[in-house]
Amino acid sequence: MEKPIQFCPCCGNRVDYKIPLGETLPRHVCEQCETIHYQNPKLIVGCIPEYQGKVLMCRRAIEPRSGFWTLPAGFMENLETTSDGALRETIEETRAHVEIGPVYCILNLASFNLVYLFYRANLVEPVFGPTSESSEVALFGEEDIPWEELAFLSIRETLVRYFKDRKKNRYLLHQIDL
Amino acid sequence: MEKPIQFCPCCGNRVDYKIPLGETLPRHVCEQCETIHYQNPKLIVGCIPEYQGKVLMCRRAIEPRSGFWTLPAGFMENLETTSDGALRETIEETRAHVEIGPVYCILNLASFNLVYLFYRANLVEPVFGPTSESSEVALFGEEDIPWEELAFLSIRETLVRYFKDRKKNRYLLHQIDL
Repeated sequence: MEKPIQFCPCCGNRVDYKIPLGETLPRHVCEQCETIHYQNPKLIVGCIPEYQGKVLMCRRAIEPRSGFWTLPAGFMENLETTSDGALRETIEETRAHVEIGPVYCILNLASFNLVYLFYRANLVEPVFGPTSESSEVALFGEEDIPWEELAFLSIRETLVRYFKDRKKNRYLLHQIDL
Repeated sequence: MEKPIQFCPCCGNRVDYKIPLGETLPRHVCEQCETIHYQNPKLIVGCIPEYQGKVLMCRRAIEPRSGFWTLPAGFMENLETTSDGALRETIEETRAHVEIGPVYCILNLASFNLVYLFYRANLVEPVFGPTSESSEVALFGEEDIPWEELAFLSIRETLVRYFKDRKKNRYLLHQIDL
């Protein structure tokens, strides 16, 4: 979660927390330089890389949830697109170069101010390995998914829908609100 | 566009702009309280409200692009979901209460650090009107869309695809990278 703003990032003055004129929600406002500092949800972009029916996952080497398994995903950076971000995160966390496919789900974690965007992805060759962010990277068939060792509920909810859709060979776009 | 961070929002100290240990991109870093301040893209959520074949649009009463026509959309707030945000923005900009439908497009404006998410929406009753953010709110048939007076390229690109899909009665999920 983003920390509350105490000082103005523009001028260093202590900020107020109040409803600006013409708005409806309280914001961090600097009376000195008259800047309103908005805080908004952040986007986490990632993918579900598939290779010969198996899904590529990584064991987190960093907090939060170090040691637990996840899909490659991370905070979208400025100056990139959502799919570029998913591609970059996959390289950073698995060293795999994937082909990003269609959007698979939009997952809201409203109480954490997060929105996940997962793409389906094709792992063309089984080339991957650990990185500074992942202690282990591996392909899992549906039966082998480490359900008890998943890092986040968002990953479970995404994978459950994914395997269900895959059985029908019909991938819906899911909005999941947790 | 978000302003660059000059002072630490947590402690008010002047920040450095450098690559933190273990990272690859430069960040605003406070040496005093050791906080790394990330800046990430923001989500704009909105919808394409339809009533009897016509689309509800609003003429902007605020900058940027005051006086030009747009679809109801705005920055997603903390503690809400993407669809709740689209609903809220529609009320704020048109006074209309819509039924939010499926996601229609994800539009990346990478150079502005923005991601738009538009939903299809159903305007059940033709109840709408101007607000503090919109000087005029109106329903437009495809032939009447004010193409020369649209506020943003994102709106044009969304509407062009929308009407094309509507002719075929087959709404694809579009990713649009501008």
